[in-house]
Amino acid sequence: MFWYDGALHEEPIAPFDLTDRGLNLADGIFDTSLAQNGRIFLLEPHLDRFALAAEALAIPFSREAAADALGRLAAAIGQGAVRLTLTRGGGARGLPLPKEPKPFLFGAAAPAPAPFPVLALAVTSIRRNESSPAARLKTLAYLDAILALREASAKGAGEALFLNGLGHVASLSSANLFAVFGRRIVTPPLADGVLPGTVRALVLKRAPGLGFGAAEQSFDLAELSRADAIFATSSLKLIAPCGSLERHAFASAENEVVHTLQAALRDAIEAECGTT
Amino acid sequence: MFWYDGALHEEPIAPFDLTDRGLNLADGIFDTSLAQNGRIFLLEPHLDRFALAAEALAIPFSREAAADALGRLAAAIGQGAVRLTLTRGGGARGLPLPKEPKPFLFGAAAPAPAPFPVLALAVTSIRRNESSPAARLKTLAYLDAILALREASAKGAGEALFLNGLGHVASLSSANLFAVFGRRIVTPPLADGVLPGTVRALVLKRAPGLGFGAAEQSFDLAELSRADAIFATSSLKLIAPCGSLERHAFASAENEVVHTLQAALRDAIEAECGTT
Repeated sequence: MFWYDGALHEEPIAPFDLTDRGLNLADGIFDTSLAQNGRIFLLEPHLDRFALAAEALAIPFSREAAADALGRLAAAIGQGAVRLTLTRGGGARGLPLPKEPKPFLFGAAAPAPAPFPVLALAVTSIRRNESSPAARLKTLAYLDAILALREASAKGAGEALFLNGLGHVASLSSANLFAVFGRRIVTPPLADGVLPGTVRALVLKRAPGLGFGAAEQSFDLAELSRADAIFATSSLKLIAPCGSLERHAFASAENEVVHTLQAALRDAIEAECGTT
Repeated sequence: MFWYDGALHEEPIAPFDLTDRGLNLADGIFDTSLAQNGRIFLLEPHLDRFALAAEALAIPFSREAAADALGRLAAAIGQGAVRLTLTRGGGARGLPLPKEPKPFLFGAAAPAPAPFPVLALAVTSIRRNESSPAARLKTLAYLDAILALREASAKGAGEALFLNGLGHVASLSSANLFAVFGRRIVTPPLADGVLPGTVRALVLKRAPGLGFGAAEQSFDLAELSRADAIFATSSLKLIAPCGSLERHAFASAENEVVHTLQAALRDAIEAECGTT
């Protein structure tokens, strides 16, 4: 199911401007959210993040149109994944920004992915580029993530772990990463080149009330290897335990902190979207 | 003027698959070349580089279709810039590669840009990520270049100079960079995260016959500041002297080595495409 020009469409083939800068130069942003019972989970945080990214790239953006797209796609799909994409629209060739941009907003909904198994991680040789603003914005420039996942798959892993240029642990190819040390959880700060994930933010916010310490703090692979558990967060993976990192096994799926956070997240989803 | 589905089209609006991975994830490549007298300059090197990039990303590619697109667009525009774009085509949501990709190839031709003035360079805070294969392939993930150029423009410069994560000079936002020391020219090696420019390759190949030393060699900003001249190379900028780097002025536009290389390039263009 697709949304563009203010309406839902069944088919993906649409009239499209081949000079679109999103297509030609990855000049745009996107957002992926979870639909449950026809509603978007964390709707306002998703719209907030989308608006901030559009502002950072100076792409004009209508929150009303984006909310309309998300609402209609969620209602149409019921349960599933909803993606919203905003490009700077068509323009003359070359990199300079068009003086009068005509942004293109579109959305897509797809059935919910199968529940994620316990993830096996492999470290990718591609570094997350913390010097680029794009490392902290969900932009269309996702090729590094594709290549990293391809590299991980070739090693038999299900997800790729990015370090950044400083050797700090950054994120997975399409998820944030947390390490559990006793009753304390730690995740890399945005400055290390990670996306401000909506589930990441929720976990950081809820952890203290559940009796867990929570911090945004840089760490390297050696420190990560001493964690009691590792888990990934994303809008679709939610809280997914990671069972291994290269040859090192982690009892993440049996970790009490991970279980408690997963239960709290399920509660938050049901509170906002109702039970399934 | 546009080319898709094997034919030329006047208008940029085309039926397009909104699940296209080039649009959604920058999963694709492009090439920009110069048309003169209805012919593409360095046609075979451009097709070779495009084929290698497609192979690196495992995107099926028809050299015949690409040559057809370039030939027809060049004939239609006469003088100008021709761009060829190849995406992995539509696919299910998510990063994993589709098992049966249906790549989308399209092209566009635009009038020749105005002759490039002497370039003023500003160093961007965004580092070129030499750890990524995408740094050496002309992929659609061009957002860093857009942001770097925006940053340079805000400082009153016309082009951005990228360093890489190691602090080596890498390239400009859309051109390779050469430094001139006496009768010797030096350009960063591909390993520093630079694109294998077609004009870059031609300059490296022709320099010895013109009596100049030529080397691919890493250097930093301090070494660059001691150069006698700096010039940019690209398919459209050709050989463009750089008159300044931040507050440091270079007499690049008056440099004899630069003049000799420019004349040799003009000869090469006329030999392949005829005189204008």
